[in-house]
Amino acid sequence: MTTLASRPAVTDQGARDRLAALLDARRPGRALPGACYTDPELYELDLRLLWQRQWIFVGSVAEIPEEGDYRTVDLGTASVLVLRDDDRQVRAFRNVCRHRGSRLVTEPSGSVGNIVCGYHRWTYGTDGALRHAPQLAAGTDPACLSLLSVHLREVAGLIFVCLAAEPPSDIDVVADVVAPYLRPHALERTKVAAQVDLVEQGNWKLTMENNRECYHCESGHPELTCTFFPTWGLRDEQVPARMRPAHERYRAAEAELATMSAARGLPFARVRDLERPTGFWVQREPMDGAGESFSRDGTRLVARLLGDLDEPRLGRASVHVQPNLWCHALADHVVTFAALPLAPDRTLVRTTWLVHEDAVEGVDYDVDALTEVWRRTNEEDGAFVALTQAGVSDPAYEPGPYTEAEGDVDAFVSWYVARMREEVAR
Amino acid sequence: MTTLASRPAVTDQGARDRLAALLDARRPGRALPGACYTDPELYELDLRLLWQRQWIFVGSVAEIPEEGDYRTVDLGTASVLVLRDDDRQVRAFRNVCRHRGSRLVTEPSGSVGNIVCGYHRWTYGTDGALRHAPQLAAGTDPACLSLLSVHLREVAGLIFVCLAAEPPSDIDVVADVVAPYLRPHALERTKVAAQVDLVEQGNWKLTMENNRECYHCESGHPELTCTFFPTWGLRDEQVPARMRPAHERYRAAEAELATMSAARGLPFARVRDLERPTGFWVQREPMDGAGESFSRDGTRLVARLLGDLDEPRLGRASVHVQPNLWCHALADHVVTFAALPLAPDRTLVRTTWLVHEDAVEGVDYDVDALTEVWRRTNEEDGAFVALTQAGVSDPAYEPGPYTEAEGDVDAFVSWYVARMREEVAR
Amino acid sequence: MTTLASRPAVTDQGARDRLAALLDARRPGRALPGACYTDPELYELDLRLLWQRQWIFVGSVAEIPEEGDYRTVDLGTASVLVLRDDDRQVRAFRNVCRHRGSRLVTEPSGSVGNIVCGYHRWTYGTDGALRHAPQLAAGTDPACLSLLSVHLREVAGLIFVCLAAEPPSDIDVVADVVAPYLRPHALERTKVAAQVDLVEQGNWKLTMENNRECYHCESGHPELTCTFFPTWGLRDEQVPARMRPAHERYRAAEAELATMSAARGLPFARVRDLERPTGFWVQREPMDGAGESFSRDGTRLVARLLGDLDEPRLGRASVHVQPNLWCHALADHVVTFAALPLAPDRTLVRTTWLVHEDAVEGVDYDVDALTEVWRRTNEEDGAFVALTQAGVSDPAYEPGPYTEAEGDVDAFVSWYVARMREEVAR
Repeated sequence: MTTLASRPAVTDQGARDRLAALLDARRPGRALPGACYTDPELYELDLRLLWQRQWIFVGSVAEIPEEGDYRTVDLGTASVLVLRDDDRQVRAFRNVCRHRGSRLVTEPSGSVGNIVCGYHRWTYGTDGALRHAPQLAAGTDPACLSLLSVHLREVAGLIFVCLAAEPPSDIDVVADVVAPYLRPHALERTKVAAQVDLVEQGNWKLTMENNRECYHCESGHPELTCTFFPTWGLRDEQVPARMRPAHERYRAAEAELATMSAARGLPFARVRDLERPTGFWVQREPMDGAGESFSRDGTRLVARLLGDLDEPRLGRASVHVQPNLWCHALADHVVTFAALPLAPDRTLVRTTWLVHEDAVEGVDYDVDALTEVWRRTNEEDGAFVALTQAGVSDPAYEPGPYTEAEGDVDAFVSWYVARMREEVAR
Repeated sequence: MTTLASRPAVTDQGARDRLAALLDARRPGRALPGACYTDPELYELDLRLLWQRQWIFVGSVAEIPEEGDYRTVDLGTASVLVLRDDDRQVRAFRNVCRHRGSRLVTEPSGSVGNIVCGYHRWTYGTDGALRHAPQLAAGTDPACLSLLSVHLREVAGLIFVCLAAEPPSDIDVVADVVAPYLRPHALERTKVAAQVDLVEQGNWKLTMENNRECYHCESGHPELTCTFFPTWGLRDEQVPARMRPAHERYRAAEAELATMSAARGLPFARVRDLERPTGFWVQREPMDGAGESFSRDGTRLVARLLGDLDEPRLGRASVHVQPNLWCHALADHVVTFAALPLAPDRTLVRTTWLVHEDAVEGVDYDVDALTEVWRRTNEEDGAFVALTQAGVSDPAYEPGPYTEAEGDVDAFVSWYVARMREEVAR
Repeated sequence: MTTLASRPAVTDQGARDRLAALLDARRPGRALPGACYTDPELYELDLRLLWQRQWIFVGSVAEIPEEGDYRTVDLGTASVLVLRDDDRQVRAFRNVCRHRGSRLVTEPSGSVGNIVCGYHRWTYGTDGALRHAPQLAAGTDPACLSLLSVHLREVAGLIFVCLAAEPPSDIDVVADVVAPYLRPHALERTKVAAQVDLVEQGNWKLTMENNRECYHCESGHPELTCTFFPTWGLRDEQVPARMRPAHERYRAAEAELATMSAARGLPFARVRDLERPTGFWVQREPMDGAGESFSRDGTRLVARLLGDLDEPRLGRASVHVQPNLWCHALADHVVTFAALPLAPDRTLVRTTWLVHEDAVEGVDYDVDALTEVWRRTNEEDGAFVALTQAGVSDPAYEPGPYTEAEGDVDAFVSWYVARMREEVAR
């Protein structure tokens, strides 16, 4: 990969000093100072020091099933082209022509034979090699003009990329731990049933913080709490009286799920390893109601189960990988979420529903029913994030205390502080 | 009130130095250098050093007549919640939840029992106290989580707030002098007949400068000059020949009004005290035509007179308080204007027409007729402000000389320079 | 002309240092570093150091045929008023009132008797003198309040302005060399048949770079290459095999055109003088097909030929003047292009078609047919520029090598680098 070292350094020392002071000012148990969510220069530092150095979730193998299938993902102003090459290998490239820099692929997804620049028709193979460029000047070596490649790692069908020259090595740990939870759901034999892009009017960290707690679920997510136990994140002794009945159902369902998982050799335990560079969290958790899927009554939403699963009532194998993935693998479908920053105060949440590749729409599943709960839940979350963005932009904002139900928000923010402290000091 | 002192200082020294140089460059008798109206960083300084330290007019008591009635006002990115509490006292709070900073109230106005955050249902009383917040962590004291209060001062029904820890104390002088002019109009017994928000495409200082002279009235405001004498701001010897007839009518009407005012114990004299921190100006002035109201022929627009007034021909008690209020109290109605900055080049002008609380729409007054003159006049002024914003953004702009009719514009700009010099030096 | 020297310096030293480093980083034979096309502060330096110091093409005399006719042109936030005064002289002024800075003329073009400010009716003659301003304060000298004049130079009907106090003197060289090519087309006896403003979503330098090569023509401009030889910019030995037939037609047409030009005393040779401050390029070149005009088959588009020309098959006298003009003078019409920066990533391309003043629309020419090729070509170019802007904004962008066909792009970029180096060092 060609290095970018020859580029003149952007003079962002002022922003780095400001960031360092804000990181120091953050008190444990509280959110970040307001500028961390609003300052355009600090947002640029987020992109440069975190999004361009961490492993970022960009989608799943089901999105590019055939040779030549691609999708593009924007990480700030960087565009990454993820495609399946002619040998069926999944690769990633910077989506920029090596000639005069034209954007190569402009559609969010599609299929190509070669990658052809629309400006002067420079043509690259799916392996990134420059195959055709007329009238190159003497002394120009086409071999030095391959597309810039991007580090890519697949974890049981989830695709992560990293723009850094030396990516965090602990993606190996994530893969080792997480893959066994997902493999029974066989993402490589799924197809995309639906994908919805929602733009939340808030900083990406607010999107992630909102996602890390269910303190707002009870009043905020009437559809989701049909099946998602709202005591998520609370220890037994922290559960308030009015939520006791739900929590008792949770405990009973958990015990039953443990037994069923053990009988099928499905990993079950919670692994919460949020402090490492590629912080993550995985667990198989029970669901309320019929316990099968994210429907109103908890019954399954897809007749055809995933992989070789024979039982619908397997709860959800839920995965979170920092900074931008959460997903739930159920017996009947998988739903993945990628948070992608668009601006200091705008974040794309891309939600993708995967079903068995042989499931037939209209027969085995109904798209509206399949997607309803998370479409509504995401919209509700988008409203919460927008409210919070407005408030943290106010000069009167002071980070208040997290409650007992917000331990994982605290963990996320602490991870962000630690990562940025380390990166800003480099 | 909790202090904001723990917040890391924004590094705006460059902007402060630039501002100081521009203030020094301003010549008396001329407008400000262009950057003062266009530079985004100087706009931030306006917000921080002036709008968040001065007394700001936000509306009148008629806008929140009942317990729980509120309205929100944005001062830059700060949102202030003004409400009448359960004891009928008017209070102001920062419109930010003490938990994770969510904006609390999102509508411009309405009515509440308690103030409930939409995110996690934290609930505050109308006195600002935190009444309900589930699962607070051990050691969290709800008493420290009341809404942040904002200094508030009512002057004969006009509401001013100040975001500073120590507001300018001379609001007492303003109140002492201005209230007697307004009290006969009994704002506490009025209701809102109409309110119009107009966004002018210019810096807030251009909005105020435009408001401080009538040099543009003769050609620019055909509706207003039916009743507003266009020689406003001119001394007798400065009145040009073509305006002499109007000015003679003015002199005659002034003499008559002086007599009528004295007979009713209404204060009449001009008090022009524009250099103090809370610079102001008040006077009862005659009107042209029938002399009663802002109609085309000067006859009254509301049958029911305000308070206990028995005579419609009382001219206008006009008040200006820097930086953002002007208003006119007539026998039949009061019209208030609040200028509120939205962006370096955008300013909200909120105009509110108040009539007697017992006046009946369609019987005692017609809303279109009541509001016509100032609706049109504001729109005309908005066009002038937009033209000027375009011009002062041009690198060729140089502040030209004020004419004899623009003494109060000069006074406003000089006040701004003095205030900002003092604040930037702190 | 009043100087602007009293204005406090904008503290742009950081941007100047950054620019200097980027200019140093640029390698010959390659495009500019990405920040040169995207950084808002560097864009401001482009405006200040180049657009406000160089000679800028703003239109032709045909756009303001009568006394009082004017047009306005925006150069960044600067607006220039170009008008024909009462003595038929073409003049240019800063479009800013000398009183409080109001924009004077707000329409892009029109006709005036005097220039009257819409705010306070200050009135200027077409010579720029302040003729009427009521109530000037004692000591104000109207003679010091004339409109600020702008340097203007006409070259055979093309109008250039310069905002600098001391414009580059080599406009004389350009005029001496270029005028003989254009004079036979008699722009002073033309009228505007059509004018189209297209906003390209890219930096102005990308617009110019795109214009300086035809490497993209073969695949990118199907309409244009009916008559525009796509080997433009290539030496004989560089022409690829598949383009040989077109190039042989070019060589034959060139020889024929040389003969015909010589017989009529029309200058023909290429003059390429791109390194001077007012870098330029002029040549009479043959056209493909019938060789007469920019139609699909090359036949003329206007029955009435320009000036006193008696022969339609005269190719195109093409002129390029840096930074922002290209134009083609044909026997039947002239088409001029002005590139004007609107934002770091937006550029206006104003295309104007001129025909003989006696040509009758619908009889001698059809507007749709006349404008079709360049309307389509401009739209295609706009798409290429937008693609490139997206790519050069990507952190992965690295300037790649120009091909043999892009020598004039290299020359343009080198000129930019040299100009900016000199200006930034002042």
